[in-house]
Amino acid sequence: MSAEIICVGTELLLGDILNSNSQYLAQQLAQLGIPHYYQTVVGDNADRLKQVIEIAISRAKILIFTGGLGPTPDDLTCETIADFFGVPLIERPEIITDISQKFAQRGRVMTPTNRKQALIPQGADILPNPTGTAPGIIWQPRPEITILTFPGVPSEMQRMWTETAVPFLKNQGWGQEIIYSRSLKFWGIGESALAEKVAPYFNLPNPTVAPYAGKGQVRLRISAKAATTTAAEALILPVEKQLIDIAGLDYYGADHDTLAGVVGQLLRLSRQTLSVAESCTGGTLGQMLTEISGSSDYFWGGIISYDNSVKVSLLGVNPKDIDQFGAVSSTVAEQMAMGVKTRLLTTWGLSITGIAGPTGGTDTKPVGLVYIGLAGPNNEVTSFEYRFGTIRGRSLIRYVSANTALDLLRRKLITRS
Amino acid sequence: MSAEIICVGTELLLGDILNSNSQYLAQQLAQLGIPHYYQTVVGDNADRLKQVIEIAISRAKILIFTGGLGPTPDDLTCETIADFFGVPLIERPEIITDISQKFAQRGRVMTPTNRKQALIPQGADILPNPTGTAPGIIWQPRPEITILTFPGVPSEMQRMWTETAVPFLKNQGWGQEIIYSRSLKFWGIGESALAEKVAPYFNLPNPTVAPYAGKGQVRLRISAKAATTTAAEALILPVEKQLIDIAGLDYYGADHDTLAGVVGQLLRLSRQTLSVAESCTGGTLGQMLTEISGSSDYFWGGIISYDNSVKVSLLGVNPKDIDQFGAVSSTVAEQMAMGVKTRLLTTWGLSITGIAGPTGGTDTKPVGLVYIGLAGPNNEVTSFEYRFGTIRGRSLIRYVSANTALDLLRRKLITRS
Repeated sequence: MSAEIICVGTELLLGDILNSNSQYLAQQLAQLGIPHYYQTVVGDNADRLKQVIEIAISRAKILIFTGGLGPTPDDLTCETIADFFGVPLIERPEIITDISQKFAQRGRVMTPTNRKQALIPQGADILPNPTGTAPGIIWQPRPEITILTFPGVPSEMQRMWTETAVPFLKNQGWGQEIIYSRSLKFWGIGESALAEKVAPYFNLPNPTVAPYAGKGQVRLRISAKAATTTAAEALILPVEKQLIDIAGLDYYGADHDTLAGVVGQLLRLSRQTLSVAESCTGGTLGQMLTEISGSSDYFWGGIISYDNSVKVSLLGVNPKDIDQFGAVSSTVAEQMAMGVKTRLLTTWGLSITGIAGPTGGTDTKPVGLVYIGLAGPNNEVTSFEYRFGTIRGRSLIRYVSANTALDLLRRKLITRS
Repeated sequence: MSAEIICVGTELLLGDILNSNSQYLAQQLAQLGIPHYYQTVVGDNADRLKQVIEIAISRAKILIFTGGLGPTPDDLTCETIADFFGVPLIERPEIITDISQKFAQRGRVMTPTNRKQALIPQGADILPNPTGTAPGIIWQPRPEITILTFPGVPSEMQRMWTETAVPFLKNQGWGQEIIYSRSLKFWGIGESALAEKVAPYFNLPNPTVAPYAGKGQVRLRISAKAATTTAAEALILPVEKQLIDIAGLDYYGADHDTLAGVVGQLLRLSRQTLSVAESCTGGTLGQMLTEISGSSDYFWGGIISYDNSVKVSLLGVNPKDIDQFGAVSSTVAEQMAMGVKTRLLTTWGLSITGIAGPTGGTDTKPVGLVYIGLAGPNNEVTSFEYRFGTIRGRSLIRYVSANTALDLLRRKLITRS
């Protein structure tokens, strides 16, 4: 007994809009424990929509439609569904009243076009739309098939989903078993290396464990099926602990955690402070740190020393070292980190200098070469060399560099204490 | 002869990620004039994927797959396609070499798991992945069916699409009648205000004009149907000129232009330089400016004065003014702008101080209150007050603040010259 999501709209086929409704409904179905195996997008075309319905009823029992409920001629979801099941449309006076009132509220008069929205299949229930003019339907055209329709506007759809569809589905016995997930996040290890370390876990039946990778980060998603969130968490917790244990320092957080947030929390707890000196990242590190509300507790600020003159004048980097070793070098990274730490009077100074590309690389200093400097509480300073490669592109090299800097500090903060 | 987009991934069915690949591919197909009528999402499940392929080949000739090309056991797109068409997988040594080299570049050794990614159906061509380890395939398993596969990572997929798939499809005769679009971008004017100014253009048949709004910006998309890009551009150009003329200074650029890029170009052409002082944006402005390769020509750097002590020590803001007027005030914004300009010896100094929220607002200084300071070539300094409102959220307030600062400088650079 599974559901299927069917999004109707030529604008989706033209790529004019992003299909966020699918994601929302997918999350909602997972939470209710309603399995769904397919999502389909089809244009505003009656014949093709009928073919999609034909396929969907052969493999699912709950069909969830979004889009095509508007007042214009190309909105044909409701009439096509009725036509498919051979049922006439009936004008429902309560919908006419509702739409008229909504127009009146905005000081307008209902247009004749909107009458179309009051036509719903004989025998269907109205799925009320509190904020828009297009109502949906809840309908069992055949004993084993349930149809739910929603407008394409996400805010209208979501409110109709939570206020009417969820209570209806729970009343049908759904939501007894839910799927609950936790994402564990790792930095400094590749997907395949981590996958090899935790390979046996990929065969677990409940919870299941699956790896995902992207933008320098690897995630392991642990998903449990259970009667309640609490029961799901109880299934997840021991597996989560074991995975974190296996990964060691490569694990940095879960779900919505960010490296900037984790570092911030470590600094806050130990009452330490941070400043940054950025060359090739040009503010990215500061931006990430200050994206977190309350970061002023531990983040004092920084210096964006994009031009070498700023490295010298504001950070005290020795111009001779820039000449001799280059601005992208371990000694300059270290002097930047010390420079910002001493000038901003913070516990830690973190610096980045590198070649983000696409130009500026040489044979000895290729694009993707990045030095990260870290100056600490006792004025000890170290630096680390990375080669992020030429293939990732400027934006990703900067993003990975900033997160790698945060990860270095994170490891230092954990292993020191 | 139509295409069909098939996105493979259980994470899509769980709603873990937004299906942006569908939108990208839909836009690309529209531009090439390749009709597509269906998009399907299916999980990492061989049987269900085979059913989807069965349906897709009954209604489309070009099947475009994304996702499921990774090294882990749940990545089964390629092997399932091969299995469906009854063709064995062959290990391709050139892929092994390519993956090994990519690992070597990052100072790592290829893991045995990655060998899986070198297995492609006998007779298929490799669709190279310049940035990741998962190659795609271009394959005609039957004379009338073309299969294209891409990894799920959007950046990898997009580069593979433009570099290899598009030339392949054009070579097959696609792209004869194309839809070509230009997006005009506006800052400092609302969607409805702009829409009223240009209302008659919304009725044009070819090119069409449509408005879009989001994240503080309004766009007008001009789309033309024509035999060639050149012919489409000829249709677009007069409309584009008229729209730009009507919008005046509110227009800042087209397509991939950013405010940071436009400002950079104006600075470069006039051989002027810029530095920034950021409080609530914490590096966002620097990040945007340095996202552009070559920005070192005009951007010297900046000071992230997140803590008030840094405003005083590094920017020379008068601590008495901070006490009297608050750190979020026009006088502090002006002193920050002058401070960074004089210390970094640039033509312009641009500053931002504000309350990004969600906490820290008061009745007189609510969340969303932002002051932008601008110090110019003759040491003249001005400031501007904005109230971006509480509903946008911290991240968007910071984004809009940084772009508004860039927009102010843009207007100044244009009207001065």
